[in-house]
Amino acid sequence: MDLALSEAHAAAKRGEVPVGAVLVQDGAVIARDGNRTREYNDVTAHAEILVIRQAASRLGSERLGGADLYVTLEPCTMCAAAISFARIRRLYYGAEDPKGGGVAHGAQFFRQPTCHHAPEIYSGLAERDAALLLKDFFQARRSS
Amino acid sequence: MDLALSEAHAAAKRGEVPVGAVLVQDGAVIARDGNRTREYNDVTAHAEILVIRQAASRLGSERLGGADLYVTLEPCTMCAAAISFARIRRLYYGAEDPKGGGVAHGAQFFRQPTCHHAPEIYSGLAERDAALLLKDFFQARRSS
Repeated sequence: MDLALSEAHAAAKRGEVPVGAVLVQDGAVIARDGNRTREYNDVTAHAEILVIRQAASRLGSERLGGADLYVTLEPCTMCAAAISFARIRRLYYGAEDPKGGGVAHGAQFFRQPTCHHAPEIYSGLAERDAALLLKDFFQARRSS
Repeated sequence: MDLALSEAHAAAKRGEVPVGAVLVQDGAVIARDGNRTREYNDVTAHAEILVIRQAASRLGSERLGGADLYVTLEPCTMCAAAISFARIRRLYYGAEDPKGGGVAHGAQFFRQPTCHHAPEIYSGLAERDAALLLKDFFQARRSS
């Protein structure tokens, strides 16, 4: 989760909403990135989607059944569905996102009958750091 | 919707699940594509996501507030969320998808409190053609 937090910090420096994600498989990092929606002009360029795409491209496989995802914020509904499609094994996330989350909030995608694979879910990792980073970012943006 | 159906036919010929999508703005097609999850080794390469990314890239804007999306199948939950994020104005879709849909089924994303923009929704356009195309595709795949 430290690596994911450093990706979130890097995203903040680029002026992006500070969320970072890391995919780990067999003890090795197979992809790491932060949110790049502004840089890419792409609403789908959330950290989770970017690492899933990168890892799938590198491994030559759509599905990442042995991979665990670390992300600093509760994934949104779009990302939750992508995590399911990619067959991610475990999901570790930091801060909760009551306004936009799709795991513990709103659609709670993994609990839907239309969800055909759900990862094991562990929340609250480095929650304070991840939440503080987001809070600082939005405070700075409002006051600038 | 005819263009979307022709993209779905083209997807079937590539061995992809036959779903096609077209984005229209001010009477002009700004992006059209079919599902390419296999070709790109990318679980997020649904037709809807591809046209949203293409249009955003071409127009240099994350948000596509004046654009209407035509898609042959009810969008899944991932695509419904992306449609919301991109601020698509109207969504027209063909066949219903009780197993994987995220608009009228399962998460029904546009009705969630975590959904901050919902398009106008029109369903059942060319429903029979779109559904038949999918049915034929899966029947052929099972028997091959």
